[in-house]
Amino acid sequence: MAELFTVLAPPAARARFLEHFVPTVKTERIATADALDRVLSETLTSRQDLPNFRRSTVDGYAVLAADTYGATPGLPAFLHVAGEVPMGAAGDVELGVGEAALVHTGGMIPADADAVVMVENTQRVDESGIELFQAAAAGENVIQIGEDIRQGDQVLTPGRQLRPQDIGGLLALGITEVTVAVPPRVAILSTGDEVVPPHAPIAPGQVRDINSYTLAALTRRAGGEPMRYGIIPDRREALEAAAAQARDECDLVVLSAGSSVSYRDMSVDVIGGLGSPGVLVHGVSVRPGKPTILAVADGVPVFGLPGNPVSAMVIFDLFVTPVIRGLLGTSTLPQQQVQARLARNVSSAAGREDYVQVRLETRDGEVWAVPVFGKSNLIYTLVHAEGAVKVPLDSNGIREGAWVTVLLH
Amino acid sequence: MAELFTVLAPPAARARFLEHFVPTVKTERIATADALDRVLSETLTSRQDLPNFRRSTVDGYAVLAADTYGATPGLPAFLHVAGEVPMGAAGDVELGVGEAALVHTGGMIPADADAVVMVENTQRVDESGIELFQAAAAGENVIQIGEDIRQGDQVLTPGRQLRPQDIGGLLALGITEVTVAVPPRVAILSTGDEVVPPHAPIAPGQVRDINSYTLAALTRRAGGEPMRYGIIPDRREALEAAAAQARDECDLVVLSAGSSVSYRDMSVDVIGGLGSPGVLVHGVSVRPGKPTILAVADGVPVFGLPGNPVSAMVIFDLFVTPVIRGLLGTSTLPQQQVQARLARNVSSAAGREDYVQVRLETRDGEVWAVPVFGKSNLIYTLVHAEGAVKVPLDSNGIREGAWVTVLLH
Repeated sequence: MAELFTVLAPPAARARFLEHFVPTVKTERIATADALDRVLSETLTSRQDLPNFRRSTVDGYAVLAADTYGATPGLPAFLHVAGEVPMGAAGDVELGVGEAALVHTGGMIPADADAVVMVENTQRVDESGIELFQAAAAGENVIQIGEDIRQGDQVLTPGRQLRPQDIGGLLALGITEVTVAVPPRVAILSTGDEVVPPHAPIAPGQVRDINSYTLAALTRRAGGEPMRYGIIPDRREALEAAAAQARDECDLVVLSAGSSVSYRDMSVDVIGGLGSPGVLVHGVSVRPGKPTILAVADGVPVFGLPGNPVSAMVIFDLFVTPVIRGLLGTSTLPQQQVQARLARNVSSAAGREDYVQVRLETRDGEVWAVPVFGKSNLIYTLVHAEGAVKVPLDSNGIREGAWVTVLLH
Repeated sequence: MAELFTVLAPPAARARFLEHFVPTVKTERIATADALDRVLSETLTSRQDLPNFRRSTVDGYAVLAADTYGATPGLPAFLHVAGEVPMGAAGDVELGVGEAALVHTGGMIPADADAVVMVENTQRVDESGIELFQAAAAGENVIQIGEDIRQGDQVLTPGRQLRPQDIGGLLALGITEVTVAVPPRVAILSTGDEVVPPHAPIAPGQVRDINSYTLAALTRRAGGEPMRYGIIPDRREALEAAAAQARDECDLVVLSAGSSVSYRDMSVDVIGGLGSPGVLVHGVSVRPGKPTILAVADGVPVFGLPGNPVSAMVIFDLFVTPVIRGLLGTSTLPQQQVQARLARNVSSAAGREDYVQVRLETRDGEVWAVPVFGKSNLIYTLVHAEGAVKVPLDSNGIREGAWVTVLLH
């Protein structure tokens, strides 16, 4: 069935796609120690107080604060040292009035004490006696039970991408296994009679396959597992068979189409025939990247990206990365933006999002975004760029000197 | 030999360390396709022009520009179509005056042509003739030979951490193998009688090992290969033996010391005895993180980090990460900063760098850095934080509303 497509603005394209695709997160159980950068799929609650004993924050003497009141260098308080709490041991030294116990940083303080005096503010006077030169308030230099986390506290929630300190926080509570999202399998197919593998010698008219590799790398960065299906011969049956296999084996299919109009026509037909509801968007108002196809085939998202490697990367970032994140159960990517001032006027057409490749330069302590010269279909435009500046849909351009957000590559 | 140490400011500490340590980069040869995020150790030069043939940027007709001059919708030029250049084929259609060849986006244009007219600006009039409605300038819609990269161009230089587009750029040139830095092996040792493995039940006075895991994760993020040596019993001989083994087996040793003063004294002795020149810095003016040890033992950097997990992470970022980067042959880390406005006054002491943990909040389109409450030795202070704001050495604090750089975790 033929359908008429009009070029859609990116937000409208995204909305139409999302009407037909609701991501399902697959999960697995792994060791917390191995979970760096994985996305959490469960709510974690603490089964204990942290710390679960009162700890000293300094090396010094655990005391009853009341015994120290009024102590000064000129009129020190005298306390009897009743014992020492070794590191890792229970603080079972019994303290009476006028007594102190030697404690170490991170160590447990005895049940009878309510403050710790730093060793620097004391002086040994004999085998078992010290002078204190400063009064301590109740609670001073003590981490209370549950001050870090309380039993029953919600610690982390689904969608969190785990950082080093998150792993530390979980292990501190004895949470040594976590349920995380399985990286979605992303099928990457290249087509085009002009495309040859990177290892092959090239004849006039031929170019090496870049997209299979750049899109695989972008997939990895987004948290997915790339599955390269290689260069598919430009016969319709071959493309249909490879795309159907990819749809069956993976959670998401990315087709980097040959760049000529006939290949684009063929790929939209093949994508449309892969399953229901089929092609949802054909053409988005983005430069570079207009000839983009968004589809869903029997529950599997399928993307037809332009063959031009720069367009393919821009469109991947815009449309594929968010879907990979959705399949991981999260909407966020770790922050990858920086504010900078635009170093030259940039013009655009209203009704189109432009992505201008820029490098960053620091001038007098300010960061400037300098547009990279070169046609938007040259891969080295991207190699020389550190990020892209988006010229919004409703704008005719951005003036030199304006503050812009640079989306880092 | 006893030596007196004074607390050094971070820049002075770094300078003293670097007087005694010059990193050596170990390299290996790997497939470019597998080199995402690896650091390049060689200068790469292009052995070819890219493209190495003239390519069309549109679907249309390759023409001699002179044949199109003066063409308008009212007075079209008529051209004879001499043939078609299929995708991936040499553009060996011979064009005479008044002749054109059908070409596709990315395809090769015939030797006799010097411009391409978009198909939208033409109309077929019969089997072999077209009308052109617009004149083309020489070079229009053509990517010239070498326009992306010229043969002999220096493409990438040592120290580059390879991104998806860099991999694409190299493969486009047929560079399918690269020399990259071997990830430095980073030994991680924990000590402390109070420290037990995360899986173990904890008795009063005991805490679970966090640092082995957070520091391993930070090592991985910096591009190193963490080697966990576990929790070393707090006997001097055990620590000496483990540290010596780590120094022999790894490129860098990180010791997360027990937090009490006696353990700190023991670890500085052990580190000092590992090799020449020994301990270089003992104490840095950073909060948190003052009891830090920087050493070099027979060419191997050795770091004694505070046992407090927050201090350990702050000091790792400040001193260990740059050394890992040095061993990779690069000084830069991918950008991980954001500008924000400080949401509350923050005070500090002059002569000390403070790292204040913050979370980010967007208010009216502006990003604000909100200091996270909680003592600086609580791991959940870091879990709840998205980054840290540095209060510089010479500052007494930063006022609410000031723009600050947030170093993202």
